[in-house]
Amino acid sequence: MTDLLALTAELVDVPSVSRDEGALADLVEQRLRACRWLVVDRLGDNVVARTELDRPLRLLVVGHLDTVPADGNERARIEADVLWGLGAADMKGGLAVALDLAETCPEPAVDVSYVFYAREEIAAAESGLAELFELRPDLLEGDVALLGEPTGGVLEAGCQGTMRLRVVLHGERSHTARPWMGRNAIHRLGRLLGAVEQLPERRPVLAGCEYREALQAVGVEGGVAANVVPDRAELVLNHRFAPDRTAAEAEAHLRTWLGPFLEPADSMEVVDVAAAAPPSLDHPLLAAL
Amino acid sequence: MTDLLALTAELVDVPSVSRDEGALADLVEQRLRACRWLVVDRLGDNVVARTELDRPLRLLVVGHLDTVPADGNERARIEADVLWGLGAADMKGGLAVALDLAETCPEPAVDVSYVFYAREEIAAAESGLAELFELRPDLLEGDVALLGEPTGGVLEAGCQGTMRLRVVLHGERSHTARPWMGRNAIHRLGRLLGAVEQLPERRPVLAGCEYREALQAVGVEGGVAANVVPDRAELVLNHRFAPDRTAAEAEAHLRTWLGPFLEPADSMEVVDVAAAAPPSLDHPLLAAL
Repeated sequence: MTDLLALTAELVDVPSVSRDEGALADLVEQRLRACRWLVVDRLGDNVVARTELDRPLRLLVVGHLDTVPADGNERARIEADVLWGLGAADMKGGLAVALDLAETCPEPAVDVSYVFYAREEIAAAESGLAELFELRPDLLEGDVALLGEPTGGVLEAGCQGTMRLRVVLHGERSHTARPWMGRNAIHRLGRLLGAVEQLPERRPVLAGCEYREALQAVGVEGGVAANVVPDRAELVLNHRFAPDRTAAEAEAHLRTWLGPFLEPADSMEVVDVAAAAPPSLDHPLLAAL
Repeated sequence: MTDLLALTAELVDVPSVSRDEGALADLVEQRLRACRWLVVDRLGDNVVARTELDRPLRLLVVGHLDTVPADGNERARIEADVLWGLGAADMKGGLAVALDLAETCPEPAVDVSYVFYAREEIAAAESGLAELFELRPDLLEGDVALLGEPTGGVLEAGCQGTMRLRVVLHGERSHTARPWMGRNAIHRLGRLLGAVEQLPERRPVLAGCEYREALQAVGVEGGVAANVVPDRAELVLNHRFAPDRTAAEAEAHLRTWLGPFLEPADSMEVVDVAAAAPPSLDHPLLAAL
């Protein structure tokens, strides 16, 4: 049986900071190409290996090759059954499992695609996964995907949606020596922030999974000059919503809650949104896990 | 008797947008030099003319030469007894009065210094008055100063102090998907802004003048990234305080009021302060007005 701790240590010892994953992609590609039951593709620093057994279902086992920058922890160090080192948990331990499965399961019960991709730890737009979706979406087709990110050994099913909203509050400029002649837009933020903080928390349970929604201010900006009552204040919010709501429903929910703090001249717009993914635990493949 | 409306119109017709007051300074200087009872100094675009009568008291009559940029109102236009034009009220009307006094009062009851200065409408650091204080403070010595800024014909005595404070609130970063693992510093602003808005208003009456204090947020900033619970938020406040308080007393007052919304790790510092000036209406020269 494979020593997964040793294999993880071997992967940790190959540096693979984001945008510099070439050496690790080489190692993974070389090992996968040695398995005659796998069809291997390499695109940039992304490597995809697939079984082609004509099974009715296909499972994707997915992991990213990169790590954050080193901090004196470049080399793996094993103490008893604990391994230390850059990227050991996130996610070279997961890569070791995926690699071992690929190498030791020539005839899995379902078809399997092993996806090793680059640049997860930086901006979403740079992700190797996005590169694959663009260049070879067929390589990412499947029924269920397992990502080996660290979760403390717990299966995390589905994911929440995320939405970024920009709220602009208006006021009226005046001199700070005579503020009663104007209206302070930054002061208006106070009540809005109170409402943001007090959004009743939803924790829907879907297929046995409890989701915990959240609404957080992630940016605030306002001010004209040191002696001017500001007529504009901007608040950026990030909302995480459970998969029992569409993005439109989540947005409507926020508009209902925050609406009383907005006036006709104010605005609230969605600037970025990613839909939630349901847990789908009744899917035969997931149900089997 | 001088036609002050016509003289104001003449001054309006000489363009003098901030930093471009040369032509108007020339005009004023030339007229003042024609008065043999005045000692005239010119420094840059500032002109100061003084009587030297060895009177026990000295009055300063002060006004700025510059205007804000034009907006189709460059030329003076008189309709009946109303004059329209760029800078007519602020403050070429006042300049006309000062110029006329200088030209028609060779033997005033007190010595008088007529101060015409540049660059009032932009930053305080650029003011011609600051230039005079630096180069020839003796030209600004006196017992009472009258500034001809528009006040609707009302004498405004003394002035409030102004103080700028920077408040920094701290929190703890976390991922917005798990905000309960951190603490949002922007959310903490909500209660602080409520307190700022609800500072009990003081309207002390000094020597018959009512002062109306004010506290206004003039700047706000915070945010790390779209998916990060921010651990820092900054609020800049401007406080206007009456002359019955020193700057230190005004600051202590704010610290008492806002203190309950700050924690040990937070900070609140005065970044800029100008003391208040008492009305001094019992001064013999002011009392005579």
